[in-house]
Amino acid sequence: MTSHRIAVIPGDGIGKEVVPAGLDALRATADRFGLRLEFQRFDFASADYWQAHGTMLPADWEETLRAYDAIYFGAVGWPSVVPDHVSLWGSLLRFRRVFDQYVNLRPCRLMPGVRSPLAGRAPGDIDFVVVRENTEGEYSSVGGRVFEGTERETVLQETVMTRVGVDRVLRFAFELADRRPKRHLTSATKSNGISITMPYWDERVAAMAERFPGVRLDRFHIDALVARFVLQPDWFDVVVASNLFGDILSDLGPACTGTLGIAPSANINPEREHPSLFEPVHGSAPDIAGKGIANPVGQIWCGSMMLEHLGHPEAAAHLLGAVEDVLARGPGEAPLTPDLHGTGTTAELGHAIAERV
Amino acid sequence: MTSHRIAVIPGDGIGKEVVPAGLDALRATADRFGLRLEFQRFDFASADYWQAHGTMLPADWEETLRAYDAIYFGAVGWPSVVPDHVSLWGSLLRFRRVFDQYVNLRPCRLMPGVRSPLAGRAPGDIDFVVVRENTEGEYSSVGGRVFEGTERETVLQETVMTRVGVDRVLRFAFELADRRPKRHLTSATKSNGISITMPYWDERVAAMAERFPGVRLDRFHIDALVARFVLQPDWFDVVVASNLFGDILSDLGPACTGTLGIAPSANINPEREHPSLFEPVHGSAPDIAGKGIANPVGQIWCGSMMLEHLGHPEAAAHLLGAVEDVLARGPGEAPLTPDLHGTGTTAELGHAIAERV
Ligand SMILES: CC(C)[C@H](C(=O)O)[C@@H](O)C(=O)O
Ligand SMILES: CC(C)[C@H](C(=O)O)[C@@H](O)C(=O)O
Repeated sequence: MTSHRIAVIPGDGIGKEVVPAGLDALRATADRFGLRLEFQRFDFASADYWQAHGTMLPADWEETLRAYDAIYFGAVGWPSVVPDHVSLWGSLLRFRRVFDQYVNLRPCRLMPGVRSPLAGRAPGDIDFVVVRENTEGEYSSVGGRVFEGTERETVLQETVMTRVGVDRVLRFAFELADRRPKRHLTSATKSNGISITMPYWDERVAAMAERFPGVRLDRFHIDALVARFVLQPDWFDVVVASNLFGDILSDLGPACTGTLGIAPSANINPEREHPSLFEPVHGSAPDIAGKGIANPVGQIWCGSMMLEHLGHPEAAAHLLGAVEDVLARGPGEAPLTPDLHGTGTTAELGHAIAERV
Repeated sequence: MTSHRIAVIPGDGIGKEVVPAGLDALRATADRFGLRLEFQRFDFASADYWQAHGTMLPADWEETLRAYDAIYFGAVGWPSVVPDHVSLWGSLLRFRRVFDQYVNLRPCRLMPGVRSPLAGRAPGDIDFVVVRENTEGEYSSVGGRVFEGTERETVLQETVMTRVGVDRVLRFAFELADRRPKRHLTSATKSNGISITMPYWDERVAAMAERFPGVRLDRFHIDALVARFVLQPDWFDVVVASNLFGDILSDLGPACTGTLGIAPSANINPEREHPSLFEPVHGSAPDIAGKGIANPVGQIWCGSMMLEHLGHPEAAAHLLGAVEDVLARGPGEAPLTPDLHGTGTTAELGHAIAERV
């Protein structure tokens, strides 16, 4: 029996509510496919932990997590207790860097039974994946303030791109596009305004494109690109973007597919030298936390991506199929959560999906 | 008779096609309201000029343009001839800085007769304005490359925010929100990821908010914000954002109102120490340039914003009313351009609006 050790980090807010639903669905899938998943839950990377310890993580977090095959993550961030940049740079963003999870893979798909906010769009019309650079770029912590507290106060922050960092995520994106039927890659840029790093990004894209003659490539400035997501989402197949632009596009894409609540993401170290991390695109959602109405689908879909990563594509497809079947019943028949125009709870929707598995 | 001198810069691509339509509408409005507008056309800030002179602007551009009350601008950028960062930093972005046009005002309104890509949205549902910081932030030209051509190649670019620069645009946005019926201001941030400049932005927002107790304030990370533009556009009244975030939001907003082709922008120096510049949000659009089918409404609406800025609110409102009347007739009755689902040309739609004035 194949066995995998999974570190489970629920985090904050609705993270703590959707993770149990995700685990139920994973357990049901593991049973069906004869896999053994051992889950170990950790309470660090949360505001509770911060309140108790004054840090987001224990000193030995890295060795601890390295012992696992993957990290199943909820959401982190509770700004009334810890400022967001402290909690995020102290946990999630640190994991991404230390474990060199340089690809953040974020599928956007309009699912049967889900109403898109875009007029006249049906399942099949929106089905693309954002490949986001996940370790460098605009998310640096290099910079600072000068002339603090005076009228001359000036604040600087460096965007840092490296050839290694840019090329490896581009290679991943080109390879992915090359394997898909449409073989179409769109690169997000803003080289007209961001005049140093973005022209560099474009140059590396052009260089990498020479190695992938079968991939149809286009590039758009980020402003034109967000517009096109709304006006022509069927245009897209694989979209590759810097850390910040990827962040923006991978929230906008899911919004176009109806709700952020269903969107998963995989923070991958493709070389498998470090554990990868699977987390929904949505955050801790303080506004709805504690009500039991958060949509667990993003978290459950993450489980499917994790199974795929662990080498179980059939189990992954089966789990995602169960999600699709339940969603397809629509808010009338299935206990869909309020963001899906239903009146179901997190637990009810999670249960229906685990049942279906 | 009030008289104003206007510098006209058509620029590149469809800029050259929509500017004549914009001038016709302005002339018709001026006639009706007894204003004298003197237009002087300049061919610099274009790829043609660059090809002929090797620079985007003549040496005396600044004195030349200072002699005018406003600049009526088309679009610049023709990447097959000049790289975008060269043409833009050599013209438009330079104007914004040298003339200290630190507010970029971009209304987003769903107009009668225009089909929104968002399901079930009617005129009145989308009506907000983006206030974009326009002279600093992510659009710096500070940075460079090290270890060029090697595997260690590293590219740096600085985001620069100053207290003066941030506070003045925030003050403008709060004052604007305070004058509008909803008195609602949304600040775009990303302080969880962009951990130095964006927490600073948030701090200055909080400080400024104390002076405007009547304004209801909220803030969203840019990823959540783009999602909300699509899912709940009626939420917004005034949105204030950094240079890059404002750029992104002010393309996404117009996309949600049907087409980028109708969206105007005003690059304003509120102290009126320097000329302000009025340009549509769309670019030079090489893909449709030369076909005569570009939508002139964005350019014409810019004329209305320019009249308002020059102290003629009635003439401005009348011109915008004429635009609304023509659009409201819909693609069946009015010669709307293809982006508005019609078969009209730039000239026909421009003519219909000038007639209506
Ligand atoms: C052309 C480009 C540099 C410009 C910008 O990013 O400011 C444009 O997109 C705009 O919005 O005016
Ligand atoms: C919480 C935040 C720092 C994070 C990011 O911006 O990367 C989140 O928005 C995401 O997309 O995973």
